[in-house]
Amino acid sequence: MHIDILTLFPDMFDGPLTESILKRAQERDLISIRRHNIRDYATDRHHSVDDTPYGGGGGMVMMPGPLVEAVEDVRGDDLDVPVILLTPQGRVFDQRVAEEFAGHPRLILVCGRYEGVDERVRKLVITDEISIGDFVLTGGELAAMVIVDAVARLVPGVLGARWAAEEDSHAMGLLEYPHYTRPPVFRGIAVPEVLVSGDHGAVAAWRRREAIRRTWQRRPDLLLTADLSEEEGWFLADLAESDAARSG
Amino acid sequence: MHIDILTLFPDMFDGPLTESILKRAQERDLISIRRHNIRDYATDRHHSVDDTPYGGGGGMVMMPGPLVEAVEDVRGDDLDVPVILLTPQGRVFDQRVAEEFAGHPRLILVCGRYEGVDERVRKLVITDEISIGDFVLTGGELAAMVIVDAVARLVPGVLGARWAAEEDSHAMGLLEYPHYTRPPVFRGIAVPEVLVSGDHGAVAAWRRREAIRRTWQRRPDLLLTADLSEEEGWFLADLAESDAARSG
Repeated sequence: MHIDILTLFPDMFDGPLTESILKRAQERDLISIRRHNIRDYATDRHHSVDDTPYGGGGGMVMMPGPLVEAVEDVRGDDLDVPVILLTPQGRVFDQRVAEEFAGHPRLILVCGRYEGVDERVRKLVITDEISIGDFVLTGGELAAMVIVDAVARLVPGVLGARWAAEEDSHAMGLLEYPHYTRPPVFRGIAVPEVLVSGDHGAVAAWRRREAIRRTWQRRPDLLLTADLSEEEGWFLADLAESDAARSG
Repeated sequence: MHIDILTLFPDMFDGPLTESILKRAQERDLISIRRHNIRDYATDRHHSVDDTPYGGGGGMVMMPGPLVEAVEDVRGDDLDVPVILLTPQGRVFDQRVAEEFAGHPRLILVCGRYEGVDERVRKLVITDEISIGDFVLTGGELAAMVIVDAVARLVPGVLGARWAAEEDSHAMGLLEYPHYTRPPVFRGIAVPEVLVSGDHGAVAAWRRREAIRRTWQRRPDLLLTADLSEEEGWFLADLAESDAARSG
C-alpha cells in the first residue's frame, strides 16, 4: 500500500512515521509513505499558501491554487485513487472506514490547515472528507497520522503473527475484556482465578462476558450493532435487569 | 498548563510537539510538556515492561509494576491531577472534554501499548479513560498527541488574537460554513457574490445558514444539541421539507 500525504508541515510526521510499527512496516516494504510539501506548489515569490477569507473574519484560508496543483501532480493519471481531505466537516472515521481504506492500493491524504480550505478545492479534486472526531485540531496532520496508523495495521504482515488485530476493541464490535499479566498478585490485587485455571473454554467464556459487561457499562451504544449469540443476549438482559434493580 | 506524557515511545512525539503551534506555545511558556519513558521504571535486568497475558491468547500486556511506579513518581504529592489512560475502552473525546481538560493546571496522559494494560493499573492509579474514536490504533501515543493539540489551543494566548477558536467547527456545535479566499475566480468557479458584497450582516447570515445547511447534510446528529434561533429552526425545517419533496 502506498500513502501520499500533502501537508504544510511535513516535519510534524517525523516521530510517528519513523518509530515502532510504522517504521518496521516501511522497512519491510509493506507500506510506503511519501510526504509532499504543499508550499512547493506555491507560485508567487513569497510562496504564499494562504490568504484572508472573502467576507472577512479571523483566520486564514488555504488558497485553492497550490493545493489543487499539488493533488494533481501527486495523483498523476491515477484518477481512481481516493483523495481524502482531513476536516472536522467530514464523515466520522471508525474501524469500518479504516477497513474500507485498507482495501485500496493507494491513498492521498490532504491535510487542511488554518481556518479552512478554499471551498473550490473540495469541488475540484477531493473525493472524500474524513473527520477523526468532534473536536477541533490545529490542522489535519494528526488526523492523517491516526488514519495511517489505523489503516497500516490492517495491511497483511504489518502486525506480525502473534498479534491478533481482529481481537482488538472495536474490531469485534465490543470493548475489550480486562487483561492481566505477571505478577499474579500486585499490591494485594490478584489475577482472577479463571485466568490461571488452564480451562480454555472457561477463559474464553469469561472474556466474552467481561467484554459484554464492559461495553454495557461504558459504551452501550456499541451494543446496538454488536453480534451477540442468544445466550449472550440473555446475559446482557441480566446485566440490565440487575442495574435497574440497583438503581430502582 | 503542564502536561506529563508517559509512553514507551517518547521519540514518537518529536514532530508533533516540536512543530507549528505547539512549538510556539512551549517557547512562549504557555504550556510545558514533559515526556517520561515508562521503560525507565522497569525493575528487572531486561527492562521488561510487558509480558504474555494470563489465560493465554496473542499479544502482550503492559505489566502493572513499571506503569504504576511511573505514574506515582511523576504525580508526586499532587493527588488531584487527572491521570488519563488513552484506551479504546474510554469515554469518547470531544470538544466538551477538551474544554474540561483545559480547565486543569496539569494533566498526566498515560499511553497504553500492545494488546492492553494490566487491569490493576486502572484500579490503582488511573482516574479517567479516554478514547479518541471507534478505531484501533497501535498505541495511545497518537491519541495523546490529539488531546495535547485540542487542549493546548484552548489555553489563552496559544492561538494568537487573529484566530477565533470559538468559530471553529464543533466549537459552535455546527460544522463550519464554506471558506473562500483569492483568487475571485479559480478554474471557472467564482466566489459567492454575497462574500464580496461588503454587507457584513448579509455575510454573517449567509455563513450561519450555510453552516446549518452543511450540518444538516453531513452530520444531522449534531443538530440535536445545536443552539438555533427560532428563525434558524424554520430554515432547517425548510431544508428538511425540500429534501423530503425531492426524494418523495
